[in-house]
Order: sequence, then structure tokens, then C-alpha cells
Amino acid sequence: AAPLLVIAGPCQLESLDHARMIASHMAKVCADAGAQFVFKGSYDKANRTSLKGKRGLGMEAGLQILADIREEFGCPVLTDIHAPDQCAPVAEAVDILQIPAFLCRQTDLLLAAGETGAAINIKKGQFLAPWDMQNVAEKVASTGNERLLLTERGVSFGYNALVADMRALPEMAKTGYPVVMDATHAVAQPGGLGGSSGGQREFAPVLARAAVALGIGGVFLETHEDPDNAPSDGPNMIRLDDMAEVINTLMALDAVAKANPVRL
Amino acid sequence: AAPLLVIAGPCQLESLDHARMIASHMAKVCADAGAQFVFKGSYDKANRTSLKGKRGLGMEAGLQILADIREEFGCPVLTDIHAPDQCAPVAEAVDILQIPAFLCRQTDLLLAAGETGAAINIKKGQFLAPWDMQNVAEKVASTGNERLLLTERGVSFGYNALVADMRALPEMAKTGYPVVMDATHAVAQPGGLGGSSGGQREFAPVLARAAVALGIGGVFLETHEDPDNAPSDGPNMIRLDDMAEVINTLMALDAVAKANPVRL
Amino acid sequence: AAPLLVIAGPCQLESLDHARMIASHMAKVCADAGAQFVFKGSYDKANRTSLKGKRGLGMEAGLQILADIREEFGCPVLTDIHAPDQCAPVAEAVDILQIPAFLCRQTDLLLAAGETGAAINIKKGQFLAPWDMQNVAEKVASTGNERLLLTERGVSFGYNALVADMRALPEMAKTGYPVVMDATHAVAQPGGLGGSSGGQREFAPVLARAAVALGIGGVFLETHEDPDNAPSDGPNMIRLDDMAEVINTLMALDAVAKANPVRL
Amino acid sequence: AAPLLVIAGPCQLESLDHARMIASHMAKVCADAGAQFVFKGSYDKANRTSLKGKRGLGMEAGLQILADIREEFGCPVLTDIHAPDQCAPVAEAVDILQIPAFLCRQTDLLLAAGETGAAINIKKGQFLAPWDMQNVAEKVASTGNERLLLTERGVSFGYNALVADMRALPEMAKTGYPVVMDATHAVAQPGGLGGSSGGQREFAPVLARAAVALGIGGVFLETHEDPDNAPSDGPNMIRLDDMAEVINTLMALDAVAKANPVRL
Repeated sequence: AAPLLVIAGPCQLESLDHARMIASHMAKVCADAGAQFVFKGSYDKANRTSLKGKRGLGMEAGLQILADIREEFGCPVLTDIHAPDQCAPVAEAVDILQIPAFLCRQTDLLLAAGETGAAINIKKGQFLAPWDMQNVAEKVASTGNERLLLTERGVSFGYNALVADMRALPEMAKTGYPVVMDATHAVAQPGGLGGSSGGQREFAPVLARAAVALGIGGVFLETHEDPDNAPSDGPNMIRLDDMAEVINTLMALDAVAKANPVRL
Repeated sequence: AAPLLVIAGPCQLESLDHARMIASHMAKVCADAGAQFVFKGSYDKANRTSLKGKRGLGMEAGLQILADIREEFGCPVLTDIHAPDQCAPVAEAVDILQIPAFLCRQTDLLLAAGETGAAINIKKGQFLAPWDMQNVAEKVASTGNERLLLTERGVSFGYNALVADMRALPEMAKTGYPVVMDATHAVAQPGGLGGSSGGQREFAPVLARAAVALGIGGVFLETHEDPDNAPSDGPNMIRLDDMAEVINTLMALDAVAKANPVRL
Repeated sequence: AAPLLVIAGPCQLESLDHARMIASHMAKVCADAGAQFVFKGSYDKANRTSLKGKRGLGMEAGLQILADIREEFGCPVLTDIHAPDQCAPVAEAVDILQIPAFLCRQTDLLLAAGETGAAINIKKGQFLAPWDMQNVAEKVASTGNERLLLTERGVSFGYNALVADMRALPEMAKTGYPVVMDATHAVAQPGGLGGSSGGQREFAPVLARAAVALGIGGVFLETHEDPDNAPSDGPNMIRLDDMAEVINTLMALDAVAKANPVRL
Repeated sequence: AAPLLVIAGPCQLESLDHARMIASHMAKVCADAGAQFVFKGSYDKANRTSLKGKRGLGMEAGLQILADIREEFGCPVLTDIHAPDQCAPVAEAVDILQIPAFLCRQTDLLLAAGETGAAINIKKGQFLAPWDMQNVAEKVASTGNERLLLTERGVSFGYNALVADMRALPEMAKTGYPVVMDATHAVAQPGGLGGSSGGQREFAPVLARAAVALGIGGVFLETHEDPDNAPSDGPNMIRLDDMAEVINTLMALDAVAKANPVRL
């Protein structure tokens, strides 16, 4: 099995300089540790808890930054899309289109994404069972595009809370598609701060470690140099300065896990 | 307080004759029982569990049926919308635009719906706490449109299952907007049949009774003359022949409940 | 169907005078409203959140109070037991032995309780499905004692939280035994205050109303003249002064519900 | 940190020969892999789903087997106790008394167990949050006995289902006591087969791997040479023939995890 894929970046794109700073750091961390690196950044936060949350730079400015990062660092880039008509233009600038968890059952979005031929990362809805993702994946695959990733990001567990079920990872892997653990959003506390989501940043590496020990395809980790002042998802992003240690430990676990595959 | 609002109809529109048959029956049942009647029908099921599920008649044909029903029976009509650009044309044909539960955090959809000036029924996401609906409602209200209904339809409870928390109804009522119990979807078992959702039709009247005893604004009940052969949501729709008895009991409870308001 | 049974009293017995004050008030409220009254009080809180919580008067003093209340007010009395060897002596002083929710799977306790011949109220564990209570009831019924009540008191819903599933009531009624809604403990927040449980007193009447609208056998409501200073369960007990209004509304709903039985 | 503790054995003791066969195999597997081994076996299943489930050999016969295993293999032995008066006699025969999950809030049982001076393994109730275990541990520690282990075995997640929250392990470790992952019971489906519990045997190694990657103190794994015909917990026990591979992988992960401690 290939070494771990690390999808990392800020929650929302802030500026080209900011994206370059993050990408530069993460590209080096991943290269040193032997991990594959994908840069992630959002141009629009279309489903903020409240209207007061910042939405982001918008599509035009965001795609330009992503294209620039791809060119400068030679790494694949990923961003999330929210409507069918965004799929084609976004697919020109990025390598991986991401389907947000809330939208993972919207048939038209899945079909439009699939038809671009880009790789598609589908976040599992907080309201879905892992085995439900087979039907979701088939919607995209019906377009002839099987370049899919399936991502666990926690499931609803009472109010304003999620839990990450580790069984979900090998269960989704039964589809044959690579499985990713989004350890950042799995430690979110949706709506937990009233007008925005809370989070448990300190547990993101915990969930990443647990998941990587199962031999998964990748991890998704949002990071920021100053999470407490980030425009979104601050409570659950990992500090950029901590990422080297986190990734190094994950790669050590990845080596053990891939030498000893889970068999269901 | 006004007598109970009954939002009822088939899950998806099938034909004008079918809609007329349901509307005719329900209009009479509601008139006899003293309930307000709103006809409900969907022109597109945009988030079926699998691609194999039937999507519906489409917007043009569906809106024509809804307009015809409104004219013939003189009742308000409601349908659900799935993208911002659907809001304006749909608002010309119907009285109440409904925001699907999965989409209740999509800011652009909420704003576009609000801007039509139509009444807006927001289904609470299966992943939201009742108090989170304050922020959701504020997105619509920011357009100046306060003609809102908030609907409970169950919250995720483990895999392929929902639970209806009765506390959610008075909790959401703190917003000042009328609260509706969707007893049909609250007894759904999402993905429970593998390629489609299961349901517990027999418990829909149970949840409706419990909710109405709290003095809520309305109930939402899907109905079909032959649920086992309906194109969607068959497992949880109530048989049309049973609706008179269901509504009569609800109205008797509604009278007691509204004479004895819940005070929080 | 018989009119609603109201099982009410303080969480823990404090003194004979205190028990008499509560019983006197509740007996009058129930008589005025046409409800059957059972006095409830605990002599030992055997599973407090922390060691710091008060355990109660102990068995000897507690049973004397319960015997005195039964004699003075002519009402049945109920208390909870925690070990097999408590069943026989307690059954001499009280009419209904209650099995605590945490202990509802302890076979020896269920058998010892059943063998006393007293009525047995089994609280459904926070970790059980409603249909699981069939097996629990059969343990008691194996002793030849079928004088059973089955009580819903909420099911685990994330951490430090419960939810009351109204479907549980008619589901448990399929056993043929009367079903009771414990609206006090269903609004508890277990461990929610760190060293003790929190609660949402204001929602206890809400859950009771919803449940009674289904035509159940009884409600369980703890009450205190000064809940904020009660030795246990203060956050979720109803103020004694509010009980008349609560019970009157419940009886009005009970009449409608029993004239229109739920049919599954 | 010490290498991983492996608590393993059959769910219920069947005979001395059976216990010796399991202990002999597991002692060798653990010695070869560098793990500490504790033999586990129950003499009484006091809370079976239904009366039809086999309860076991009883205390006298069970304790004799445990004492014999301890002597023959030189390993510590563990068993679960169900009433305060069992603690002292059981503590004479075994090294670790285990508090069952359903009973983890029963104050008298915790105190009696603590007073024996034996090591105490407390299973976290399916209805508790990880931070609630601080109060539970303090009940035992109040006796002066701090030889405690805290075990995660899954938390209620809808009906007839559990989920294992990996955050619970480092959260419970904040108490300072060693934390154990019971991967066998965390994959149980309580009541899932109607008259008995179901289980997902294939996921037990999955949860064990995830947990061990966090650097925990131990794992708890039930095993049987023929799980499909075991008297209890067959659906979730690991086949004895598979244990060597499972333990070897866990030890490889344990080495990485303990070289890279989780820091909260």
C-alpha cells in the first residue's frame, strides 16, 4: 500500500501569502516524513453556523491562489464545491473536488462533480452510516469517474457533538475506494459556541493516530499558525508548529499498519 | 392560539389526478375536524438514498399541479426547493417554500428563499440541536422575511435511525415562530433498506399525538392511498383511509393543549 | 382504560413530616383531578454520581415513613430496592418495589423482587431499547408474578444527556403490562454538573404531556416544595406548587387519549 | 511506559481443562510478543439479556479454576463481581476484581471492592461520559486503594448498538490510572439477537489497534477456540487461532505509541 496521504491546509483561504506559508511548511514536513501531500483550502464557507461567520475570498480569488500553490509547490490541491455549476470551473484549477458532508446526498452535485473527471473526495454526512456511502459513491461512479476518496468526519452523537467510529474506516474501505480520516472536523462541536462551532483541537491528533493504525489511505488535518485567531474552525485546527511531530508519529504508525493489513 | 395546521399530501407528486384525489380527501377531513389544511407535494427528490430512487415529475410539471390544486381547493400549497435559483420561480406557484433538512445550513439557499417573500418552512437538520435553529432562522429573517415555520423531523440516533425529541418543539418555539412536527420523516429509517429508507408508518400518528399535546402550530404528515406502492417514503406514509381518524384525535388533543399552554 | 396513575413524591425521603406534607398535597391534587395516586420515596440513593451526594435515611427509617404514609393516606407506596436481600423486607412495608434503571438486567434482583409477590415497577435502563424490556419482564414473570409496570426514563443520547423516545411507550405496551413515563429522570442530565446530575425541570411537564397523549398507564413525577435545596434530583423535580396545574392538564389529555387508543 | 497489558480469556469459565487450554495459548502468545498477560474468566453471568442465557459455573467452582490457572501459569487472574459480599472471598483467589459496566455507579460495590486491597478494573458504563469516571474512581480511592484500572467498552449509540469513542481513552488517562480498551464488548450489539446480544467479531481487532495507537495501558480481548459455540459473547469473541497475529500487530503499534506519547 502507498504511504499515507496528508491532506492539509487552512480551513479557509486567507491570502496567497498565507497559503504559501502553510503550504511551504507542510510540503517540507510531509517530504521529510515520507508522506504524500495535498494542499487544502476553501474559497467559500457556504454553511456557516450563523450569518456572522466569515464566508471567505470567493471563487475567483480562491481558485487563483489554489492554482498558484499547485504550480509553486507541485502538489495536488483540493477545495470544496457547493453547487453543480461550480464543478466545471473549479475542476480546471484544482485536482480534487470535495463534496461537503451536508451535501453528500445531493444527487445533482455528485453527478456534476463526477462528470468533471477530477478526483472527488466525498465527506460522509454526520447523519449517515458508513455502509450508506456505497450508494453515495455509486452516484459519482455512474458518471464513469471512479477517482473517489471517502472521508469520515464524525457522526452525530447527541446535540452539538460528534463521535468518530473507527469501524467506519474499514467498513467504507469495502467499497474499494481509499478512505480518509478527517480528524479536524471529527473533533468539532457543531454549534457548540452558540453562534459558531466549538472544537477540541487537542483530540485531532488522537483521532488521526487511531485511524492511521488501521492502515487507511489518508488523513485530513486543518492547520493554522494561530488557530485562536483563524476566521473559521479555529477551535479544532492544529497549530502549524505542532504538525511535524504529528505527521512523524502518524508515519511511524502508518508503516506498522500497512505491514499488517486489517482483514474483515 | 389558532387551531392546528395540517400540512399533508403525498411524498412526491405523481399526477394531477393523484394530487386532486389526495387534496380532495384531506381538505374534507381537515374541514370536518376544524383544522387548517396545506397541501404538500414534491416535484423533485434531489437527495434519494440511491440513484435508483425515482426523482419525480420535475419542476415545470410539478408547479403546474401545485398551482392547479391551489386554485381548485383554495388551500395553500407547499413544496421543497433545492437550489437558490429555484426559489423565485417556485414562489410564483406556491405559498410555502420548504428548506430540506440536509440543506438547512446552506446560507445562499436560505437567503434566496427569504427574498421571495413567500412563507418558508425550514426543516431542522438531523444533525442539529433545537437551539441551533435560532441561527438558521436569522439567516432567513435577515432578508426582512419573518414568515417562518420551523419543523422538527427527528435527529440522528445511531446509524440508520432517528429519534424525535419532544423537548425540541417548545425549545424551537422560543424563537417566536410557529413550530411544526413532521411525524412522517421522524419515523423514517434513513438508508434502512440498503438502497432506500425504511420507516415505521405505525408510529407516525404516535409522534403526531405526542407533539400536538404540547400545543404546537402544525403537523406535517405524508399520506398515500397505497403507501406500499408509492414511489418514495412508502414505509412511513400514513394510509389515506386512516387520516380522518388520525386528524380527529389530533384536533381533540389540540383543543386541550391550546387551552393549557406549555410555559417554559 | 383506567384513569392515569400518578406516581409522585420526593426523590429521597427526608423525614416523616416532609413526606406527610408532600403526600397530603399530592393526594388532594390527584383526588380533585380524578387520578390514581401512588406515593414514591427512596430510603437509599445507592448510585449517586459522586461519594459526596447524600444517600438518604437508610432502610429502617425509610420503611417506617412509607408504612406511616400508606396508613395515614390510604394510598399505595413505592420505593426502589438495590440488592436481592432487600426485596422481602421492603415488600412488607410497600406496595410496589421499583427496580432502578442501572439494575434492570440484574437477574437475581429481578427474581428476588418477583418472588415477593408485590407489584414491580421496572425502570428501563438508559442503555436498552424498548423491545429489550420483553426479556427483562420475563425474568420477573418467571416467578409467577405478573404484577408489572414498565417505565421509560430516557435513553442515552451522547454524553451527559438523555432523550425520551415516545415510540418506546406503545412499544413497551405490546408486552401487555402497563407503561409509565418517568418525566423527571428523562429530563436529567446525568453527571451534567460534574459532581452531580443536572436537569431541565421545565421540560418534565412537557414530556409528561406528550406521553399521556398516547394513553399510557401512568406518569412518574418527582416533586419538592423547594427543589433547588433538595438533597438529590433538585434540578429536575417539579415544584410542588406547580403540580395541581400539571396534573389537571395531564388528566384532560388522558381523557382524550383513552377515548382514542393508539393502535399499532 | 510499560509494554501493553493483555487481559484475555473466555467470556465465561467452562472447565479447568478449557481454561488451561486458553491460558496456555495466550501465555505463550503474550510472552513471544513481549506483552504482559492477565487471564480473565467469569464464574457468573449475572445480567444476561434473557433468562435462557447460561449463567456459568458459580463462584466456588469458578474461583478454584482461577486459582489453579494463577498457580500453573504464574499470571495474574481477573474476574468480575456483582455484589458487595462477593468481594472479599473473590479477592482471596484472584488478583484483579472487575466491576461490570452496568454496576459502575453502585457505591457499595465499589467500596467493598476497594476495601479488599486487590487491584480493581472498573468498566465504564455504556451510559457514562469518560470524564464521569473521575467520580467513579474516587469512590474506590476513598478506601485508600488506588490500584485501579479504567476500561472503555463502548457507549450507547442508538438502540442495540455501541460506539467506541477513542477520545475516551486519553480523557480517562487524565485521572492518572491506567486505561484499558475492551475491544470485545465494544463490538457487542446489546440485545441485537432478540434473546441475546449480537456482535461484530471482525471489528474487535480494529478497535484494539486504534486504541493501542494512543499508548494505552492495556487491552481486554475475549477469545475462544470456537466462538460460534461458546456459551456467551460468541458473536464478539476473537478466535483463539487468530490471537497471535492480533497481539503481534498490537505490540508493534504499542512500541510506536509509547515512543510518541499523546499529550493533551
